[in-house]
Amino acid sequence: MRVLNPFDWLLVMVLALSSSARAEPVDPLASWNDGAAKARIVAFTQAVTEPGGKEFVAPAERIAVFDNDGTLWAEQPAYFQAFFIMDRVKALSPKHPEWKTQEPYASLLKGDLKAAMAGGEKALLQLAMSTHAGMTSDEFARIVSDWIATARHPKTGRLLTDMTYQPMKELLAYLRANGFKTYIVSGGGIEFMRPWAEKVYGVPPEQVIGSSIKTKFEWRDGQPVLVRLPELNFINDKGGKPVGIQQHIGRRPIAAFGNSDGDYEMLTWTTAAPGARLGVMVHHDDAEREFAYDRRSHIGKLDRGLDDAGARRWTVVSMKADWKTVFTPP
Amino acid sequence: MRVLNPFDWLLVMVLALSSSARAEPVDPLASWNDGAAKARIVAFTQAVTEPGGKEFVAPAERIAVFDNDGTLWAEQPAYFQAFFIMDRVKALSPKHPEWKTQEPYASLLKGDLKAAMAGGEKALLQLAMSTHAGMTSDEFARIVSDWIATARHPKTGRLLTDMTYQPMKELLAYLRANGFKTYIVSGGGIEFMRPWAEKVYGVPPEQVIGSSIKTKFEWRDGQPVLVRLPELNFINDKGGKPVGIQQHIGRRPIAAFGNSDGDYEMLTWTTAAPGARLGVMVHHDDAEREFAYDRRSHIGKLDRGLDDAGARRWTVVSMKADWKTVFTPP
Repeated sequence: MRVLNPFDWLLVMVLALSSSARAEPVDPLASWNDGAAKARIVAFTQAVTEPGGKEFVAPAERIAVFDNDGTLWAEQPAYFQAFFIMDRVKALSPKHPEWKTQEPYASLLKGDLKAAMAGGEKALLQLAMSTHAGMTSDEFARIVSDWIATARHPKTGRLLTDMTYQPMKELLAYLRANGFKTYIVSGGGIEFMRPWAEKVYGVPPEQVIGSSIKTKFEWRDGQPVLVRLPELNFINDKGGKPVGIQQHIGRRPIAAFGNSDGDYEMLTWTTAAPGARLGVMVHHDDAEREFAYDRRSHIGKLDRGLDDAGARRWTVVSMKADWKTVFTPP
Repeated sequence: MRVLNPFDWLLVMVLALSSSARAEPVDPLASWNDGAAKARIVAFTQAVTEPGGKEFVAPAERIAVFDNDGTLWAEQPAYFQAFFIMDRVKALSPKHPEWKTQEPYASLLKGDLKAAMAGGEKALLQLAMSTHAGMTSDEFARIVSDWIATARHPKTGRLLTDMTYQPMKELLAYLRANGFKTYIVSGGGIEFMRPWAEKVYGVPPEQVIGSSIKTKFEWRDGQPVLVRLPELNFINDKGGKPVGIQQHIGRRPIAAFGNSDGDYEMLTWTTAAPGARLGVMVHHDDAEREFAYDRRSHIGKLDRGLDDAGARRWTVVSMKADWKTVFTPP
């Protein structure tokens, strides 16, 4: 046995002290309260990453999909993309004097969102087309980037990008640190999310899936451009989510995170296959720190998802009970 | 200065010898002859990866796109997917007695590809639909996997997966080793390529972009399935390639590799932007080792691409002069 000299002893003491100081490692899910939801997420992640474990999943197959509105950021009192549409209608109105008398624009310009929405889906689609089409894809990306840099929530006054959920951002990072590829799979516009999803969520453009309008390749002054057309391409919601996942990813995720019945098919598609699977529904039950709504909400309705979560072994996350903090501090 | 003991001297000698033995490192592009094409590819790659260099590109932006038919594997005397369609028509024919007299099936079943194609694009689309639709996406992936495992070329008798180009596979690996994300962007069927692209090219399903038919989410016996419909979704060719790239990747590639005028818009979209860009057209000029065709070919026509390569600063690769070997040895 080797006898330690005084210097070595000192070194051992220093190491022991520093190791003791590090005995409590930083919790990657620090904004989550200890409870069944957090335990389930951690147990699943450990199971699929344990080399030689019976539920081990190769890194290439570790695909996790996240809804955006209501799952990664707030969606009340309206989808944030609706605020973008309103602001775009205002910005474009000087070029469209006819909008002053023409619905749904007239109501929108008066700030009456409810009246503007009286025309239902058709009115909404018309608003989306006239604000999301007609420019090149590069131009649209710049419009979105400029807007999101200053857009604020009508009630809290906070930047919309600060109304993202800190626990979910920790979860995205935690899964990536465990070899997962994280995707956004949203009913929102794919090109509305891409310009800021990497900065805000760490999700690169090629891992953002969403609804889209058609685009067309064109030559303008000898330069190639992609022009956005006022024509629907794909609605990435409900049964469209598994379709969008297959189109973009080409393999079935092993973990899915949503908050509404619009995510029901995505969670089922993800969890109704052999092997370790994780399905999570975020439940908006915190009126004090965020919003409280579920079965009877027009936006983010969660009804069937609550009924079937038990039978489908999905985890329901209570924002009130499971989250230490809700929003990312500014 | 420390004096080396005899053991250290020995170690130094061994290291010097082994370092000398390693002085000639393995060339990652060993199947490429030294010439302008190889030099251009290497210079581009070094320029965009040199930290602090004026053409440096962050790894996240290092997107390289590759056409498949005629660029990564052969496409003569017909697209290999046409062989798949023929084999599927034969396999399905017992369930379709009416095909014996109905065109284009009747001609195809007699092995008369030319007569079967007399109906033009409409006939081809009909054949594609009746062989690529009607099953779930999981079932189709199994059908393709089983087929590609044994499918052989009608002239060479080689496995189709062995009719892939060794120099291009080295290029894929070389770019990936330099931090690139490599994508396939093909006019071929996206779900026809995905089941084997990872094994053969090292390109995972989520990095395969291609033409597609529509799919529909359905419940079957309480289980969620994606059913393939006999309805066209997207043609990923010509101007469709930049559209497909934007849909799937959401950012402009910095390098594009093709072999025909079907890749013209993709190469233009890639190279007509500021910063270091690489556009490459593979020229089939080697009748002895592969096939020789360009301006007048029905398959893989390369005409405008040859005319404009100089002005657009694209590199034309001569299979005859630039490639030491063509196909991957079995």
